[in-house]
Amino acid sequence: MNDAWVLALSGGVGGAKLSLGLQAVLPGGALEVVANTADDFSLHGLRICPDIDTLLYTLSARSNREQGWGLADESWRVLEALEALGGQTWFQLGDRDLATHLWRTGELASGRGLDSVIDDLRQRFGIATRITPMCEQPVSTLVRTDQGELDFQRYFVEHRCQPSVESFEFRGIESARPSSDLLLRLAEKPPALIVLCPSNPFVSMDPILAVPGLWQVLAECASTVIAVSPIVAGAALKGPAGKMMAELGVPVTAAAVAEHFATRYPGLVDTFVLDESDATLSPAVQEQGIKAAVMPTVMRTDDDKSALAQRLLRLATEQHH
Amino acid sequence: MNDAWVLALSGGVGGAKLSLGLQAVLPGGALEVVANTADDFSLHGLRICPDIDTLLYTLSARSNREQGWGLADESWRVLEALEALGGQTWFQLGDRDLATHLWRTGELASGRGLDSVIDDLRQRFGIATRITPMCEQPVSTLVRTDQGELDFQRYFVEHRCQPSVESFEFRGIESARPSSDLLLRLAEKPPALIVLCPSNPFVSMDPILAVPGLWQVLAECASTVIAVSPIVAGAALKGPAGKMMAELGVPVTAAAVAEHFATRYPGLVDTFVLDESDATLSPAVQEQGIKAAVMPTVMRTDDDKSALAQRLLRLATEQHH
Repeated sequence: MNDAWVLALSGGVGGAKLSLGLQAVLPGGALEVVANTADDFSLHGLRICPDIDTLLYTLSARSNREQGWGLADESWRVLEALEALGGQTWFQLGDRDLATHLWRTGELASGRGLDSVIDDLRQRFGIATRITPMCEQPVSTLVRTDQGELDFQRYFVEHRCQPSVESFEFRGIESARPSSDLLLRLAEKPPALIVLCPSNPFVSMDPILAVPGLWQVLAECASTVIAVSPIVAGAALKGPAGKMMAELGVPVTAAAVAEHFATRYPGLVDTFVLDESDATLSPAVQEQGIKAAVMPTVMRTDDDKSALAQRLLRLATEQHH
Repeated sequence: MNDAWVLALSGGVGGAKLSLGLQAVLPGGALEVVANTADDFSLHGLRICPDIDTLLYTLSARSNREQGWGLADESWRVLEALEALGGQTWFQLGDRDLATHLWRTGELASGRGLDSVIDDLRQRFGIATRITPMCEQPVSTLVRTDQGELDFQRYFVEHRCQPSVESFEFRGIESARPSSDLLLRLAEKPPALIVLCPSNPFVSMDPILAVPGLWQVLAECASTVIAVSPIVAGAALKGPAGKMMAELGVPVTAAAVAEHFATRYPGLVDTFVLDESDATLSPAVQEQGIKAAVMPTVMRTDDDKSALAQRLLRLATEQHH
């Protein structure tokens, strides 16, 4: 795939793992990741972008692998002092992590847009892969639960996903627009492959694809679009996707995720990748022309990540011919 | 002085030292300090209040005495990470210090006023002395120099006071108003003593006294007003006051500071305290009814601070009778 490029849509941890695999097997700069920003929030006046930061830390090999989030070699001096002041400590802000938030907040305060600030930041982290926020406008995922409406981070971090979800709202999404630079790159040359990473379908993929115009542009690209199931063997590998599906009355299966995408974004997904341990797609989804591809999708090691990336690239090449 | 109270006007280090002495010799809660906020600035989106923070750290016995600024037991993890990102590091933000800025910025972002936030903060630091910002409105000291106009912190920290000063502007001062709570306390019971601490006359005392209405209210109080000279033996003990006087073409003497106050705030100061090593006041100043009081004013130890505070209280009692 000479000067070909790959576009990945990603939320946090699961998406960042596959992005790392894609980055490892592609030439430098041939990958671009569109990141969910609907989890973004303000704390102590700082703009915090959890999914973008997970991508920054993962793609620069700075992530804390044991912990599963945040930075390696992290310390907690500021958080300890904040706790002594009786300040909010429900969101764990590490000292090194804080530098990212401070730098970003300062640049945004100077009037730069998020797209430009993040492109600068990923270069400062030494990352060849472009990381593009899903939009520059503020969008906030609100989770409607049996305990009332919660901001996503409150639901996710403070309440540890315990409330039962009923529905989601992406507040501000109607004013959101995809990155102009991304649209220009897509218009210049469609990516050889567009990957919907195995991130949460409801709170990572849906907000990205809900940015007005984005999924339609991607669907119309002459690109192979492959979605990788975040549900393996009837459970989410990471995070609350499985619990959410059960609470929403949807079967906790890869096939149900495929159906979710087929219904909301008709014509977008060409191939849906299921893990070896899962059943195949429903006839209804297959009738919409979505092919099933079965392969190992669990990424424990870096080799797993690269192997999955290689299999997706091969699949795209095969389907293109 | 039964249920009597003392009001001090203070900038940073020198004013905080005398405030600590006053706090040590007065009953708990009998001191209130009005702090200069014209040095405040935003960095990385955080609201930083250098003079208030010096007061918080000094009055809670958390200040770094060897260094002369900041907190004891400080660390620099965030600043190191910011430096690695190529971020702004000209203002030394310590990890523990950052917790103060984060907490304050978060509270301000929630819509609280600075007066209420600082009163809460000093209680969280375990300080009995009330610390009152000179106003809630944003005011910025601009230093006009031979190298152009500089924000105060840029002049003070980044340029280390090297440019030659020509004049000062307190941008926004016309919209500033003294704290309503302070005005109510002054109306209820005038302080037994009002102290102009030995802080920089041009960039600490002048901005406080330039808040419209404040100095006139203080002058009309039935309170003894004592100003302590920041110039001892022809030099400032700390900071650029002496250098500024020379550049402004004013003799670098305690008497010239007294004349500055007498000219700008006629009728405010009752007694001007000069150090033993200084000459007396000029006839012009004395003609305005300002008395000179000569005593040791250099505060090296905590005992020095308490001794000076005791002498000022005695002076106020004597003058009241």
